[in-house]
Amino acid sequence: MLAGGVGAARFLRGLVQRADERRVRVIVNTGDDEEFYGLHVSPDVDTIIYTLAGLANPTHGWGLRNETFNTLAALERFYGRAWFALGDRDLATHIYRTQRIRDGIPLSRVTAEIAARLGVKAGVIPMSDNRVRTFVKLRGRPDALPFQEYLVHRRARGAIERIELRGIEAATPVPAAIEAIESSAAIILAPSNPFVSLGPILGLAPIREALRAAKNRVAAVSPIVGGRTIKGPADKMMRGLGHEVSPLGVARLYADCVGLFVLDNADRRHIASIESLGMRAIATDTIMTTPARAARLAGIVMTALAV
Amino acid sequence: MLAGGVGAARFLRGLVQRADERRVRVIVNTGDDEEFYGLHVSPDVDTIIYTLAGLANPTHGWGLRNETFNTLAALERFYGRAWFALGDRDLATHIYRTQRIRDGIPLSRVTAEIAARLGVKAGVIPMSDNRVRTFVKLRGRPDALPFQEYLVHRRARGAIERIELRGIEAATPVPAAIEAIESSAAIILAPSNPFVSLGPILGLAPIREALRAAKNRVAAVSPIVGGRTIKGPADKMMRGLGHEVSPLGVARLYADCVGLFVLDNADRRHIASIESLGMRAIATDTIMTTPARAARLAGIVMTALAV
Repeated sequence: MLAGGVGAARFLRGLVQRADERRVRVIVNTGDDEEFYGLHVSPDVDTIIYTLAGLANPTHGWGLRNETFNTLAALERFYGRAWFALGDRDLATHIYRTQRIRDGIPLSRVTAEIAARLGVKAGVIPMSDNRVRTFVKLRGRPDALPFQEYLVHRRARGAIERIELRGIEAATPVPAAIEAIESSAAIILAPSNPFVSLGPILGLAPIREALRAAKNRVAAVSPIVGGRTIKGPADKMMRGLGHEVSPLGVARLYADCVGLFVLDNADRRHIASIESLGMRAIATDTIMTTPARAARLAGIVMTALAV
Repeated sequence: MLAGGVGAARFLRGLVQRADERRVRVIVNTGDDEEFYGLHVSPDVDTIIYTLAGLANPTHGWGLRNETFNTLAALERFYGRAWFALGDRDLATHIYRTQRIRDGIPLSRVTAEIAARLGVKAGVIPMSDNRVRTFVKLRGRPDALPFQEYLVHRRARGAIERIELRGIEAATPVPAAIEAIESSAAIILAPSNPFVSLGPILGLAPIREALRAAKNRVAAVSPIVGGRTIKGPADKMMRGLGHEVSPLGVARLYADCVGLFVLDNADRRHIASIESLGMRAIATDTIMTTPARAARLAGIVMTALAV
């Protein structure tokens, strides 16, 4: 699976009910990694790990359940008001990650260590050990904003002009990511934001090439349902960047590397146009309000890929 | 004041009742600073700051009051059992200190920032911006142990053979420390461990020289009462290193730079021998079980120094 954060985590929660978790590998976006208080935070990676570990906060979509925020309150005495919520238990993950990276251990290995210590059986693979940073250029602002600042601090306000993936040309994928794509019977692009969640992963040329070569085994689940996203600013981004805000708009972005497109029943009318892009398209209920619904959706995707 | 941790903090709590806190400057030992989880922890500095800020835990002698330990519990999933208790609010101090030091800010400036943010009005001056590390060599062990490992992890067990102050020759004092000694009407060596708390401070040659030049303005309060310490392993250390475990044994260590030695009434019999070392000696009640008793002791020391 190729994954961003919350939408991907929801799907994954279903997938591991239909597949042996030990055989699942998740390639995760690190473009919105950020340093807070000198600590390396990997929001998408942690959302995936905490979800698989059964530790994720069920209401927020980020962070841990039963979390406290005492360190953050004390940090505010030094740094002023915090706009990115880091819980006390969550901070332990960032402290560990930061120390290991400072010791020269690649992010991919540190990520595997964190996943293992928290009891995750799936492979969690950050897309690259190199630093790629997603920036969002808003209309009327001179500088592009780091993604978390745009999403969390500014609550995704403002008209988007451009997405910049700084460092993407120099970055190389983690070898395990390529290996996973080449050797898996089914590859699923999660219903994540196509620009800022899957965009950085697909922006790594060897990953995109590997997906193209595997196209018949690759499915994508639309993050757009009925003209909008379930969560996050993907719809606003599509509009701002001049794309049609529909599953067809998403499918166009993936036409070279996706063989099966899964959209919601509400968007059935797009099936023919999507198939004309050179991929199969199926419609089903894609709203994952419960783990059971997520599992059902994962089952449908896998069946359609003939797994 | 020259200070280690707990004993110094108790005295200081009294001193600021007798003196204007804004005119008090505390030169603090950093020899037992340690890195935990990649974070720079300054145990003595923090004990002094938290005490002056009125935030210190009244029972432990370290850390903050009303503290929680949720991050530490989560860190144990990555690092195994923790032997050094770092509270959630306390961690904010270490995270801030670590980031600032990594940004190239000297420890002395970062310490002043932390003290100011927590509302401390006294000057808190770490002895040096350079790294000095106190090691304890125990009989029967090949390697010397970092001080915190000896004190906290091994609970000060084992026969002490030698104290090593690694880096002390290359280290220079913070200029403000020298300036404080030169310009203060009264300089007080807190009732701290003479080897591992005041030893590193006095081991900085320019500090010792400045104290010698100011000898008549320098008082020391004995950390040994009735043949033992109130808290900590100073008595064991003195014995292990071949010193007499008494105020006289302590006074001998300070003979070149202390003009007034303050000992407990229980040790009156040592007055004459101490005075024969070339300093005045006075006996009083030095047990600081309450802030009022600490204030009384501070008043006596200042009066005896004619402040």
